[in-house]
Amino acid sequence: MSRIRVGIVNVTGYIGMDLARLLHGHPGVELVSVTGRSAVGQKLGEAIPHLAGIDLTIASEPDRVDFVFTALPHGESAGPVATALEQGLKVVDIGADFRLKDAGEFERWYKVAHPAPGYLNEAVYGLVELNRSGIREARLVANPGCYPTGAILALAPALEDGLIEPDIVIDSKSGASGAGRTVTLTTHYAELNENVAAYALAGHRHLPEMVQELGRLAPSAGLSVTFVPHLIPMTRGILTTCYAKIKADRLPGGEDGKAYLAKLYADFYSGEPFVKVLTAPPQTKQAWGSNLCLVHPAVDAGTGRLVVISAIDNLVKGGAGQAVQNMNLMLGFPETAGLESLPVYP
Amino acid sequence: MSRIRVGIVNVTGYIGMDLARLLHGHPGVELVSVTGRSAVGQKLGEAIPHLAGIDLTIASEPDRVDFVFTALPHGESAGPVATALEQGLKVVDIGADFRLKDAGEFERWYKVAHPAPGYLNEAVYGLVELNRSGIREARLVANPGCYPTGAILALAPALEDGLIEPDIVIDSKSGASGAGRTVTLTTHYAELNENVAAYALAGHRHLPEMVQELGRLAPSAGLSVTFVPHLIPMTRGILTTCYAKIKADRLPGGEDGKAYLAKLYADFYSGEPFVKVLTAPPQTKQAWGSNLCLVHPAVDAGTGRLVVISAIDNLVKGGAGQAVQNMNLMLGFPETAGLESLPVYP
Amino acid sequence: MSRIRVGIVNVTGYIGMDLARLLHGHPGVELVSVTGRSAVGQKLGEAIPHLAGIDLTIASEPDRVDFVFTALPHGESAGPVATALEQGLKVVDIGADFRLKDAGEFERWYKVAHPAPGYLNEAVYGLVELNRSGIREARLVANPGCYPTGAILALAPALEDGLIEPDIVIDSKSGASGAGRTVTLTTHYAELNENVAAYALAGHRHLPEMVQELGRLAPSAGLSVTFVPHLIPMTRGILTTCYAKIKADRLPGGEDGKAYLAKLYADFYSGEPFVKVLTAPPQTKQAWGSNLCLVHPAVDAGTGRLVVISAIDNLVKGGAGQAVQNMNLMLGFPETAGLESLPVYP
Amino acid sequence: MSRIRVGIVNVTGYIGMDLARLLHGHPGVELVSVTGRSAVGQKLGEAIPHLAGIDLTIASEPDRVDFVFTALPHGESAGPVATALEQGLKVVDIGADFRLKDAGEFERWYKVAHPAPGYLNEAVYGLVELNRSGIREARLVANPGCYPTGAILALAPALEDGLIEPDIVIDSKSGASGAGRTVTLTTHYAELNENVAAYALAGHRHLPEMVQELGRLAPSAGLSVTFVPHLIPMTRGILTTCYAKIKADRLPGGEDGKAYLAKLYADFYSGEPFVKVLTAPPQTKQAWGSNLCLVHPAVDAGTGRLVVISAIDNLVKGGAGQAVQNMNLMLGFPETAGLESLPVYP
Repeated sequence: MSRIRVGIVNVTGYIGMDLARLLHGHPGVELVSVTGRSAVGQKLGEAIPHLAGIDLTIASEPDRVDFVFTALPHGESAGPVATALEQGLKVVDIGADFRLKDAGEFERWYKVAHPAPGYLNEAVYGLVELNRSGIREARLVANPGCYPTGAILALAPALEDGLIEPDIVIDSKSGASGAGRTVTLTTHYAELNENVAAYALAGHRHLPEMVQELGRLAPSAGLSVTFVPHLIPMTRGILTTCYAKIKADRLPGGEDGKAYLAKLYADFYSGEPFVKVLTAPPQTKQAWGSNLCLVHPAVDAGTGRLVVISAIDNLVKGGAGQAVQNMNLMLGFPETAGLESLPVYP
Repeated sequence: MSRIRVGIVNVTGYIGMDLARLLHGHPGVELVSVTGRSAVGQKLGEAIPHLAGIDLTIASEPDRVDFVFTALPHGESAGPVATALEQGLKVVDIGADFRLKDAGEFERWYKVAHPAPGYLNEAVYGLVELNRSGIREARLVANPGCYPTGAILALAPALEDGLIEPDIVIDSKSGASGAGRTVTLTTHYAELNENVAAYALAGHRHLPEMVQELGRLAPSAGLSVTFVPHLIPMTRGILTTCYAKIKADRLPGGEDGKAYLAKLYADFYSGEPFVKVLTAPPQTKQAWGSNLCLVHPAVDAGTGRLVVISAIDNLVKGGAGQAVQNMNLMLGFPETAGLESLPVYP
Repeated sequence: MSRIRVGIVNVTGYIGMDLARLLHGHPGVELVSVTGRSAVGQKLGEAIPHLAGIDLTIASEPDRVDFVFTALPHGESAGPVATALEQGLKVVDIGADFRLKDAGEFERWYKVAHPAPGYLNEAVYGLVELNRSGIREARLVANPGCYPTGAILALAPALEDGLIEPDIVIDSKSGASGAGRTVTLTTHYAELNENVAAYALAGHRHLPEMVQELGRLAPSAGLSVTFVPHLIPMTRGILTTCYAKIKADRLPGGEDGKAYLAKLYADFYSGEPFVKVLTAPPQTKQAWGSNLCLVHPAVDAGTGRLVVISAIDNLVKGGAGQAVQNMNLMLGFPETAGLESLPVYP
Repeated sequence: MSRIRVGIVNVTGYIGMDLARLLHGHPGVELVSVTGRSAVGQKLGEAIPHLAGIDLTIASEPDRVDFVFTALPHGESAGPVATALEQGLKVVDIGADFRLKDAGEFERWYKVAHPAPGYLNEAVYGLVELNRSGIREARLVANPGCYPTGAILALAPALEDGLIEPDIVIDSKSGASGAGRTVTLTTHYAELNENVAAYALAGHRHLPEMVQELGRLAPSAGLSVTFVPHLIPMTRGILTTCYAKIKADRLPGGEDGKAYLAKLYADFYSGEPFVKVLTAPPQTKQAWGSNLCLVHPAVDAGTGRLVVISAIDNLVKGGAGQAVQNMNLMLGFPETAGLESLPVYP
C-alpha cells in the first residue's frame, strides 16, 4: 500500500523538528516535503544535523503532499492553512491561530486581528481524549498548546464529575524548549541554568484556551482559573500541579474518598493509549520523548483540597506527538501509529 | 577585640558546610571547632575539599566554644543542645527539633517522641523579620526550615493585613541540596537531571511549621493551608508561589489595587536588610549564595486572586545564612555581619 | 512469522532498561523474560515506571528464551552465560567479562580471577564495524565498553592506514549514566551538577580493551595510549577527543592533507549505517537516544597533529543499541532492525 | 583611611558584573563608577538585579576614578585604556588587546589591526604567580584569558623544570559563561543542556597567548601546542587536562617519580595564596566562586606521560578575581584583599 504523503510547514522550530523525527518512523506516511522560514535550499541534515537520516531539501512551500502540518508562530498559519484546505488537503495546525473559537478573544490575547476567522467554526480542538469523534471528521484540527494539554487532562475527570469548586489554581513547571528556538537572554544557558522563575503573571496566552475547554466540560460552573507558568532548568517536560476545593459532601473521608477519586480517574481514562493514571506522583522524565500524559489525583489530607498532577513531554504530547495522534484519527490510521516508542530514561 | 569562639556540630552536611564558609568570613567570630558524625579526626579540608582554607580537624564534640550551631537530623539535636545550654552557651539549632511549640505536634509529624520537650517553651522561632526582639533575648533559637522561610515571608504582609481568605495554596520548587547530602536514587544525577516531580503529597514536615507561624500572624483566621513541594534539577534555591483569594471589597480594582499591594509589602519590609520587595517576579539565581529573600506580590487580573512569589537560597536564607543572622542578634553584632556578600551570578 | 524470544538478565540497570526499550520496538523479536538482582516478583512497570508499557514480571532466571542478553557487573556474567550457551542459546554479554582475550589481563584490571576463561577464546568482540563477519558466526559476543566504542571508532581509520605515530592521547567526557544506577556521592545531584572532574588517573578498566582492539588494527605499532575519562554534568553521551602525531611525510600540507584525511575516514565508514563522518565537530546531543557514532577527523594546523572527535550515546551505541546491533547480525536480521529511530533533539 | 575610587568600563558582561560583586566587598576600594555599552542611565540594580545592593547608575564614561578596569570585547579597549593612562590612572584591561606582545600576532588571530600598539611594550601580562614583580610596577596590566590561566598554571612547573618534551596537548572543558552574555544558538539552553562538543578546531585565540607565556618559561624548548576547548553544560568553571611526554631519564619510576613530581609542584607554588596543589584530581566546583586554581600533576603509569589537571572558576581566577588580584599588587594592597571568600559548594 502506498503511504500518505505528508509535509511540514516550518520544520526548523523545535516542534517542527520533533514532528519530522516522529513522521520518519511512522508506518503509514511518508514525509516528502519540509519548509522553513530560514534555511530554504539547504539539505535538512545541514540545517538540523540530527535529522540527517531524512533525505530532504528545505523548500519554501510544501509540494505534492496529501496532508500538511503547519508549525508557525501565531498569526502566520492562516495563509498556509487556507491554501492547503483549498487544495483539498487536511491540516493539523500546531500554532495558536485556530484554538480559540472566538476571534475577539484571539485578538484580545494575541494583539492582532484574527487572520482567518472564517475557518474558526470548523476547526476542531485537537485534544483527542476529549474530542475523538470530532477530530475523525475534521479537515482542520487545532493542535492544543502544551500547557493546556497537561492542565486539561489533569482536571477533566474532576470537572466533568462536578466534584470540585470552580476556583482553580494551575501551577506549571516547564522546560526551556517550550520557549522555542529563538535565542533570548531568558533562555541563555548561563542565565537559566541553576535558576527558576515564574513568568507571564499578567496572563499567559494559554489561559483562555484552558478556560474555553475546561468550560465545555462544566458549562455551568463559572470557572475562575489562575494559571502561573514557571521556567525551570531542563529541556523537555511540563509538570502541572492543579489545586481546587472539593465541593462539600461530595467525597467521603479517608480511604473511601481516595478510592472514589482513583476510580473516577481510572474510569475516565480507561482504554486511553496515552493517558496513564498513576498511584504515585509522576515525573516528567517518565514521559520523556513519548506521547504519554501521566496523571495522579490526590486529596490533601489536611484541607480536603484536590491536588492533581500531570506530566508530559511538551514537544510530544504537548506538540508533535499529539499532532501525529490527530493525523492518525483524521486519516484512519490506528491512533498509536508512529507513537509506540517508550519514553527514553534516564 | 577578641572574637567570639563558635562551633558547628555536624559540619559535614550541606548546611553545616555552608555555615563554615560564612563564619570563616565573619568579622566578629572565630570558627574554632567543628564536629562530624563521620570523618572524625580528619582535617576539614580532607573531608570537605572546598573548606581547605579553614585549618581545623573534625572532632567528635565541640570544644572551648562560646556559641554553638547544631546542624543535625531531627531527634538528634536534643543532647548537644542541652549540653550547650547547661554549659551556659547560646545555641542556634538548625535542625527541626525546636521549631514546633507543641511536643505532640512534633511527634505526630516526626514519628518520634520529642527528645527534650522541656526546652520547647524557651526556644524562639528564628525568623528574624517576624521575631527580632525575641531572638535578641534568646538562649536557644530554632532556625526555620527552608520552605517555611520562603513561604512565611511571602505571606506575612497579606495575612497580617487581613487581606486574604484563609484558604492558601503554597507551591514550592526546590533544588536538590535541600534533600541533603545522603545519597538516594531520587537525587542520583541521572534520575534528577532533566526531571521534575512533586513529593510528600501525604504531608511535608514543614507544613505544621508554616501553619504555626502563619497562624500567629492571623490568630483568628482559621487557616487551611495546602503545601506541595517539588524537586527540580538544580542545586540551590527555592521558589515559592503562594495563592490565596483576596477578601471581598478589600482591594480596589486595577492600578489602585496594585498600588495598595505594593505599598503593603514595601512598608512591611521597609528597612529589612535581607528581604527585598521586587516589581517583577524574582529568580532564585538572583539570591544565589546570599542571605536575600526576594518577594513579589501580584494580583491575578482575571480572578482577583493574590499571587505572591518568593525566592531564596535554601542553604543560606533557608539555612546557614539565617543561622548567622540569628547569631548576630543573639550576640549583639550588626545583623548583616558576615552576610554582606552579594549573590553570585550567573 | 513468529518472533524470536529474547530475555534480559538484569533489566534494572541503565543499559538493561534501555535494552528493554529498544527490544520492545524491534520487529523481529519478542521480549519475553527479564530478570533482576532486586525487584524479583514485581511488575516491570512498578520497578521501572517508564517501562510500564511492557507487560512482564521480573523473574530471577530467564525463562523460555531463544536468545539472551546479560547485563551484569564484571565477574557475574560467567554463570548466566555458561548456562545459556549450554542450553544452546546465543548470548550477547554486555558486561566486561568476555572483552579481554587474556585471562591474566582481566585479572590484572578487575582484581578477580576470570570466572570462565574457557569461553574467552570463542567470544567475539562485538564492535560491529570492525568485526562484522566474526559476529555473524558467534554464539557469544562481548559487547564493547562505552569508552572503547567511541575511541576505537575514532582512531581505527588512521591507525589502519598507518597515518599516525603510536603515541595516542584519548580524552573522554562522559555523562553520569555511564557510572550506573548505584547511588554514590560522586553522582549525587548536588555534587555533580555544575561540576567536572577527571577520574581513574591510575588507569581505567576500559584502557586495556582499547589497547587490545586498536592493537589488532596496527599489530606492529607498539601502541602507547593514555586515556583519561572525565565526568561532566549530563546524563547521556560520551565525547571522545583523540590526539596523535601524524607521521612525517605521511600527509600533504593544507587542503590536500585535509582532503586525504576526509576521504580516508569517509571510505573507511562508507556504507556503515551507524557511523557518520562529519565535516564539523559533533555534539553528543546529535546522537542522543540513537545508535549513531558521529566522527570528525581534523588536523591541528599549528602542529600538524591529528585530532579526531567522536560522539555517541553511551547507553545506546555504547551499550544497549550496540547489543541489539550484534543480536541482529547473530540472528540474521537486518543490521538496523529496531535501531532506526532518529536522535531525540533537543 | 579613604578608599581608592575604582571604576568598571562595561559592567554588563559576565566578567564586569562579577568584578562589581568582588569590588563591592573589597576593604580598600570603593566602586564609584560603572559604564555599559547598553543600559546607560539605568540603575545598576535595574539592569543587573543581583547587583541591586550597589547604589550606582550606569554611565557612558568612567567618572572621578583613581583606577579603572576595562572589560570590553577585543579591539575596543584601546580608547578607554589610552584615555585612562593619559589621565594618570592605572588600568587592568580584562579584554584581549594587550595580552599578545606582538601586534602582528594580534592581527593574525583577531583579524583587525591592533588599535594601540604603542602600549604593547609596557603592558604586563597579569598572571600574578609568574609575574608578580612586573605587575607591582605596572601602569597597564593585561588580564590573562580564562583558558591560558588554567593551562599555564598547570604546565609552568614542569616546563620550567625542563621535565617534559615540547609536544603538548591541552584539552579544556568550559562552562557556558566563558562564551559571554551575548545570546547565540550554541548557548541557547535547550541546545547546550545535556550536550558537549569541541569547538575552534581551526585555532582558538587563546592559543597564541598560551604559547607566548609558556615559551617564556622554556625559551629554547620549541613548543608545539595543540589546544582544544570544549563547551560543557554548566555555567562556571574550566577544567584543563594537559598531556606531555616526560623526557627520557628525567623521572625515576614508581613512587620516587611521583614524589619528585609532587615536590616540584609543591615547591613551585609554595606560599601562593590562590594556587593549591592537590593529591587528587580537582573538581571545578571546589573552586566555584573563588579565586583558587587547583592543580594536580600525575604520571600515567602505562606510558610515563605527564598528565596535569587544573580547575578554576573562569569568571574569577579566569577573569574578575585575577583582575582584583592584579589591582591589589598595583595599588599595594595585600594580594588577597577582597578575595578571601571560600568557594560556594555545593
